[in-house]
Amino acid sequence: MSHPDKLFASLFEPTRIALIGASADVSKTTSRPQRFLRKHGFKGEIFPINPSRAEILGEKAYKDLDSIPGEIDHAYILLNGKAAVAALEACGRRGVKAASILAGGFADAGAAGASLQDELVRIVRETGIRLVGPNSIGTVSTDPPVALTANAAFAVDKLRTGNWSLVSQSGSLIGALLSRADARGIGFARLISVGNEVDLAVGEIADLLVDDPKTGAILLFMETLRDGDRLARAARRAHAAGKPMIAYKLGRSEIGQELAKSHTGAIAGSDATFDAFCRRHGIARVAMFESLIDVPALLVDRPAAHQAEGRGKRVAVATTTGGGAAMVVDNMAVAGLDIVGPPQALVDWLKPLGIVAGEGKLVDLTLAGAKPEIVAGTIDRLLADDASDAVIFVVGSSAQFNPELAVEPLLKFAKSAKPFAVSLTPTAEKSLALLTAAGVPAFRHPESCAEAMALCLLRPTPRREPALSEPTRAALDSLEAGRVSGFDERRAADFFKALDVPVVKAMAVPDAKRLPAVVAEVGAPVALKILSADIAHKTEAGGVALGLVDGQAAAVAAREMGKRVRRHSPTARLEGFLVQKMERGLAEVILGFRRDPLVGPTVTVGLGGVLAEIYKDAATRLAPVDEAEAREMIAEVKGLATIRGYRNLPRGDVVALAKAIAAFSTLAHKAFADVREAEINPLLVKREGEGVVAVDGLVVLG
Amino acid sequence: MSHPDKLFASLFEPTRIALIGASADVSKTTSRPQRFLRKHGFKGEIFPINPSRAEILGEKAYKDLDSIPGEIDHAYILLNGKAAVAALEACGRRGVKAASILAGGFADAGAAGASLQDELVRIVRETGIRLVGPNSIGTVSTDPPVALTANAAFAVDKLRTGNWSLVSQSGSLIGALLSRADARGIGFARLISVGNEVDLAVGEIADLLVDDPKTGAILLFMETLRDGDRLARAARRAHAAGKPMIAYKLGRSEIGQELAKSHTGAIAGSDATFDAFCRRHGIARVAMFESLIDVPALLVDRPAAHQAEGRGKRVAVATTTGGGAAMVVDNMAVAGLDIVGPPQALVDWLKPLGIVAGEGKLVDLTLAGAKPEIVAGTIDRLLADDASDAVIFVVGSSAQFNPELAVEPLLKFAKSAKPFAVSLTPTAEKSLALLTAAGVPAFRHPESCAEAMALCLLRPTPRREPALSEPTRAALDSLEAGRVSGFDERRAADFFKALDVPVVKAMAVPDAKRLPAVVAEVGAPVALKILSADIAHKTEAGGVALGLVDGQAAAVAAREMGKRVRRHSPTARLEGFLVQKMERGLAEVILGFRRDPLVGPTVTVGLGGVLAEIYKDAATRLAPVDEAEAREMIAEVKGLATIRGYRNLPRGDVVALAKAIAAFSTLAHKAFADVREAEINPLLVKREGEGVVAVDGLVVLG
Repeated sequence: MSHPDKLFASLFEPTRIALIGASADVSKTTSRPQRFLRKHGFKGEIFPINPSRAEILGEKAYKDLDSIPGEIDHAYILLNGKAAVAALEACGRRGVKAASILAGGFADAGAAGASLQDELVRIVRETGIRLVGPNSIGTVSTDPPVALTANAAFAVDKLRTGNWSLVSQSGSLIGALLSRADARGIGFARLISVGNEVDLAVGEIADLLVDDPKTGAILLFMETLRDGDRLARAARRAHAAGKPMIAYKLGRSEIGQELAKSHTGAIAGSDATFDAFCRRHGIARVAMFESLIDVPALLVDRPAAHQAEGRGKRVAVATTTGGGAAMVVDNMAVAGLDIVGPPQALVDWLKPLGIVAGEGKLVDLTLAGAKPEIVAGTIDRLLADDASDAVIFVVGSSAQFNPELAVEPLLKFAKSAKPFAVSLTPTAEKSLALLTAAGVPAFRHPESCAEAMALCLLRPTPRREPALSEPTRAALDSLEAGRVSGFDERRAADFFKALDVPVVKAMAVPDAKRLPAVVAEVGAPVALKILSADIAHKTEAGGVALGLVDGQAAAVAAREMGKRVRRHSPTARLEGFLVQKMERGLAEVILGFRRDPLVGPTVTVGLGGVLAEIYKDAATRLAPVDEAEAREMIAEVKGLATIRGYRNLPRGDVVALAKAIAAFSTLAHKAFADVREAEINPLLVKREGEGVVAVDGLVVLG
Repeated sequence: MSHPDKLFASLFEPTRIALIGASADVSKTTSRPQRFLRKHGFKGEIFPINPSRAEILGEKAYKDLDSIPGEIDHAYILLNGKAAVAALEACGRRGVKAASILAGGFADAGAAGASLQDELVRIVRETGIRLVGPNSIGTVSTDPPVALTANAAFAVDKLRTGNWSLVSQSGSLIGALLSRADARGIGFARLISVGNEVDLAVGEIADLLVDDPKTGAILLFMETLRDGDRLARAARRAHAAGKPMIAYKLGRSEIGQELAKSHTGAIAGSDATFDAFCRRHGIARVAMFESLIDVPALLVDRPAAHQAEGRGKRVAVATTTGGGAAMVVDNMAVAGLDIVGPPQALVDWLKPLGIVAGEGKLVDLTLAGAKPEIVAGTIDRLLADDASDAVIFVVGSSAQFNPELAVEPLLKFAKSAKPFAVSLTPTAEKSLALLTAAGVPAFRHPESCAEAMALCLLRPTPRREPALSEPTRAALDSLEAGRVSGFDERRAADFFKALDVPVVKAMAVPDAKRLPAVVAEVGAPVALKILSADIAHKTEAGGVALGLVDGQAAAVAAREMGKRVRRHSPTARLEGFLVQKMERGLAEVILGFRRDPLVGPTVTVGLGGVLAEIYKDAATRLAPVDEAEAREMIAEVKGLATIRGYRNLPRGDVVALAKAIAAFSTLAHKAFADVREAEINPLLVKREGEGVVAVDGLVVLG
């Protein structure tokens, strides 16, 4: 079985490789690709290019690209700056299918480098050559071996094969992961450093790997996201193919985001929006670096579970070390998993053996020692139990002193239908290696075992993006009105209403005269607000009056308001007053919409008010969302517990809230592409069946 | 230098050891102590006791304790149940200084075992013998070697020496930590399994270790806390002696707490109160298991820092791998540390070398390769910079391929005055071993490096317990009144007022007649509440009316209230009405006091209301606290940001709040020992300078 895409072959299985700027000086980085290719057994042809030499490291050297006969699958350009640009141009003209550039100093090095990078973009566009980098430390396959890399980490004597592939935006961390995996007895199928991603970016490469028969899992080390749409597509196809996609991304802290930016010249998106991206497309995001190699074994061949009412997250735990198992359980519970006790069948089976199980939730076999038949019989019965969704066995000191004995009864569960993992309490490298070689997911730390199991059971499946129907005439007109005259509060309200978000009843009047009639129509009590596109902060300008009980009170308030606002903002154009019905709700919600520079349109739901801001309690998703996803968002906002049925508090209308969120999220439609940001704050949630109502909001174009 | 306490010698340096119930069958656990003692080079005398044998494993055996000539330093009892009890009694009568019991099956095994354990308590009390266990897998010293243990983990060929000591409530995890430390090139001075802690518990043993010249750091693996006072004393003395005390404790989740309980029959306290205990007494609590061995190197010989306005938590980072360092920085920022850039002196020094530092906060030496003189010169200048409090160097692939070269320039910083740590990005065991041997704190995971640095810089120093002055007459009288007649709302208010907590102005009236006069005195508007010790939920009984604007309104409300309450609770004794001034504040705070079964009196401050409950946003400390510590608590409650000066919101009277917290926390005085729980909810915080006022509260005796 071979890969359907020819690009794939020129990246990962080239047989004729040009090394432009190869060096014969083994102390130089530019000598490494040739040395590493040969060291790790590359069987194809290498064409070192160096105009000043006839031979390099025992292979014939060429003065330029044109002197090489026949087709070239891949050219690795080892020159810097303008020379690298010229080399790429030559490759493009010569019809080389793909090239990589080692040097940095392009967009990663500020303005001067950026214009050089523009040249690369132009060449790619004009010649159709596909480019990895610049700033790419190389691309490696292990079987057949193609170590086309300048990465010192490949100075290792033996390159371990495996069936996971790594795509990294950091070159140096490829080495770190290679060594960490090797120490665990784990090898890779492909490893690629994508550098500045001028042409080929993480998404397109991951998409190629989905169809690679040698790739069983796709690992991503990310600092930014440049081709989100492509990565989304790859993630969905990977899921369909049963190949988990697992990502570590820098930038959980603000300083981490800054660093990612300065390190590669990349834009850093917010951490919450990247999470939303992973969730939508079914990417498992890990928090610990080493989890990138720890987690895949547990996810491979396991479809993500569907949870309903606790189902899907119930783990049974057996052990030969009570304390060690307690640590795993403690960490799993903190990660949101449920622990379930043994089935009666197991309790009954263990009883004649003198083991009392079932009092606590752990099945503690310590008294039985590590007798293989008891361990295996216990795990068999736990795996067969419908009340659990996964099983963990926690091994004690036997793993250290009698690896074969301790591990033997566990090996047969490598292919269990239900997720099964082993956590090793002592340092027990031999046991770890035996388990890993047999394909049993095994963990060195209770924390990483818990993180992996939580990812295995709780990670979302890719969710279909809801179809967006065509915007209504009213919505398009309303947007146009805002474009022409600016989005004051009234026009924003009209727009949200046209999107199908319930909006507070309100009417505008040009002056105080018609107020009594309007108040009667809107319904007292009312709020009165000055209307002026020139006044951003109405309250500070004295332009808001609340709780006016009738038309008379409103008229008095309007006259005083007019005077106050004039004093405060003498030059503002006043367009009249807005009369709004005063509404009350059980909760105030804030809805936000923005276009993230990395992942695109997002929608955020949070509790309104200052406390919610302090607690940073909000749920973010890619927009649009359907009502089902909106309900998940509502469930995720802790503070909305107050309307979900908390103690004796009355329930709020979460159905109407979900509808409003879904309606608001249709701002993602391309017809609204110039809506940069929008916010409804507050959206009042009334009692069950009584709906929601938007009281205030804003729309920012741009 | 030797240890001042004789008990210490009989535990850790015994020279004449009896093994009661020793076995000649090497497949039996009871044969292990003798084998391990000899295997690891014990130089003293061993007296195996076994009535059916004359010789065991080549050593003379004894039929009973009395047949052994001379003094016995330590007896390890390897018998079960009643036989173990009888053996302890014999040891006590024979004048053996200390004994350990291996067997479980005492309080850890439910009611039957508990009565057996009571027997052990009696013997200890009557004979004065000191006991480790029952359920103790043994006590080990490495130099001179005394491997008095039945723990299979000591089957290792070589016992590494070291200067950290481990006290563990789990026997099996001693083996896990031993193997994990050994794999890191780290050895221990002492290791002790304390089991059920019938007599000697963690605190007393840790206290002995403080004076042990061979112990430089004290590591605790805990499932519960049985002698908190003693551990508190030990932690303070350890701090004074410059020996860090580091604890891992199970029970971060509720299921974890249950497990700890079922595993050892121990009471599990709440996680927040154990945190409060660690904070008060200066114990560094780690979250990752392996941090127990990862962290001490960085803490040894480093006094905990005092932070003021960000000072004390500023870390400078240099690296030869940008991506690897970014991970460390990201994790440190999430853990609350600040990252600072290089000083000008370093920027100037690096410039002629072609390295541009100072644009980002990382000092990235990648371009300089790993040249030792540049690395050392960089670290020298970072350590000399007053703008940072600690320095981290993050090593890339050179640590894997050229350990000596990569590590050599780092070794000289082992004794730096300022904390210095190394984070290794690849798996680089040789580099790790070289650094560890030289005493340079080195880390395998970016996460553990960040956790250790955060503990090093942010861990609190032990805080002096505020002195409690004698309670006032008023407080004692008020408590007595509550004891006699029950603590209704009024008597609770009187009590809190007597403690010096400002309480809302209120007066009680027996009936509605005097209401107009009383309302005039209290000041309208008022709240009216029914007074009755028989009605727990006043609002439900119709016994509360709010916002009464004058005496007339109050009188009307009182008559209606009387009728409502009669209907609702026909048999309740009504004592009249409480007239309370209606107060408003910027924030509602809840103050809680309780006696934790493990750590004793605690005080908790949280934001009042349902949201605070949902967010679990509260600060807990051991009681009493002084005003300074109360201010720290206020700073720790996120939701109280609203009164600490947030955006344009008015500031609340945090000074008065701190005073009230401190006053409330004097409930810890022994004169109030029968106050089991107390709560003020809400305590209203007014504007700066306007004070606080308690509106409602309760006191529970028992």
